[in-house]
Amino acid sequence: MSNVQLKEYINEKVALISDRLAVYADVQEVPDTLRNAMAYSLLAGGKRLRPLFVLATLESFGKPIEPGIPVGCAVEMIHTYSLIHDDLPAMDDDDFRRGKPTNHKVYGEAMAILAGDALLTYAFETVCEAQAYNIPADSILKIVRELSSYAGARGMVGGQCADMEGENTRLTLEQLQYIHQHKTADLLVFCVRAGAILAGAEERQLALLTRYANNIGLAFQIQDDILDVTGDEMKIGKPVGSDEKSSKSTYPSLIGMEESQATLQRLVDEANEALTAAGLTDTSILRALATFVIERDH
Amino acid sequence: MSNVQLKEYINEKVALISDRLAVYADVQEVPDTLRNAMAYSLLAGGKRLRPLFVLATLESFGKPIEPGIPVGCAVEMIHTYSLIHDDLPAMDDDDFRRGKPTNHKVYGEAMAILAGDALLTYAFETVCEAQAYNIPADSILKIVRELSSYAGARGMVGGQCADMEGENTRLTLEQLQYIHQHKTADLLVFCVRAGAILAGAEERQLALLTRYANNIGLAFQIQDDILDVTGDEMKIGKPVGSDEKSSKSTYPSLIGMEESQATLQRLVDEANEALTAAGLTDTSILRALATFVIERDH
Repeated sequence: MSNVQLKEYINEKVALISDRLAVYADVQEVPDTLRNAMAYSLLAGGKRLRPLFVLATLESFGKPIEPGIPVGCAVEMIHTYSLIHDDLPAMDDDDFRRGKPTNHKVYGEAMAILAGDALLTYAFETVCEAQAYNIPADSILKIVRELSSYAGARGMVGGQCADMEGENTRLTLEQLQYIHQHKTADLLVFCVRAGAILAGAEERQLALLTRYANNIGLAFQIQDDILDVTGDEMKIGKPVGSDEKSSKSTYPSLIGMEESQATLQRLVDEANEALTAAGLTDTSILRALATFVIERDH
Repeated sequence: MSNVQLKEYINEKVALISDRLAVYADVQEVPDTLRNAMAYSLLAGGKRLRPLFVLATLESFGKPIEPGIPVGCAVEMIHTYSLIHDDLPAMDDDDFRRGKPTNHKVYGEAMAILAGDALLTYAFETVCEAQAYNIPADSILKIVRELSSYAGARGMVGGQCADMEGENTRLTLEQLQYIHQHKTADLLVFCVRAGAILAGAEERQLALLTRYANNIGLAFQIQDDILDVTGDEMKIGKPVGSDEKSSKSTYPSLIGMEESQATLQRLVDEANEALTAAGLTDTSILRALATFVIERDH
């Protein structure tokens, strides 16, 4: 798949996801401020990378992507709530996100906490919308369980916790990997597994796709670390070198830039090997997304 | 059912719930601080009133209570997370809860936010544990949807939001009812509906039980308002008159004490009428719990 084709694919699917998110964000019978605070962050843009992996996984099995749309939107709700809470003064205390004032800067801390709670809760109802596409209830329940697990204490929240506790200390590579694994990779693993479960994957395929997604998730975070050193402030929307200023441990600071680049490449290669072994119908998009992750500049 | 019998019933069932919560709180592969912060609030005691309604509803259909235990525990996770976030400095800024320092006083604000997020997320995995008792996947999915709805922006979080926005202003009775409805009643409605769904209730019974639970939830909150004026500080674990001090609107302050007591009684009477109309096997416990709510002194 060429770069142009991939960009077209991404634009088309991101539009699908964004349109559906706008529908979900227009939640009825809710206090106006709460609805506005939820929509402000949910519709603030962003790469919508995670839902793309749900849809691309369904395509890799030769299945229709529609049931993946609510599931992908649910993941964006989880991702968005985690950013809102992460930006709070008690956490990272960030004033800007994607070039806009953070949620609590606009709506106040209390409302930002509640908007985050509401988005997190809403994600589970949204996942269940996949029922409208004749997905067996058993499969959706499995997805509910996995979303709870990968997004919760054993997953993303655990990663946030370790990240916070590791601030202002020099981490070991093992600790940094734990943080990357849970803070970033777990949600991506969920996306690929959810797409595969919707597609009716076998356990063997689920295991291989988990390896694929896990590697891409780790690669994504290493690329984030690298971009923080080399990136252009306008493109990533936060001050370049901000991690370094707060003496945060990163891949480049722990193992050097060259070794970080090599690790990134190795992770992507192994991801592609796992894809091949899974014996899917058409892995071109999943493969292109893997490459996209390490070639992006923001 | 006599008071002594009810107390025995409550003690026995609260022990069941507490034991299971202790198992769930011992969550593995999680950073120690996060696990401790989650367990600190989840196992801090409390009346466990909500899970009792799940179990009592199953009994009212003559069904075994076991599938209600994970569902009841999930509700306690939701209730507990809402208290942790509600106590935060940006929200109610409370230092004590149930006679113990609040979560953020012990673990810091950032960890309290994450522990709340983790408990909220965990609730959905926990609901799915009802699958172990041969409950159809369709029924559990319906419960997942309802938990998300009653606990989220249209439900409890919406109520919290309205409550916060109404602080330091004199509310109308209608606004106060909205807050009571969503902040308190919605979660109780969920409990009774979830018990009924687990029991395989018909839609007509679900509607009547919803009216029962809604009334009891509103009565519970009016009793809370009344206790805040008349209660004993030791028993309710927070300073008596604290709502009045912060110029918070309450039933007694809006319609007077006598009218508040009358409303309370009317709500309970109507709840009992709905119970009768539902034609259940044995409503003695649900009836006794209704009375218990308005006779409790803390």
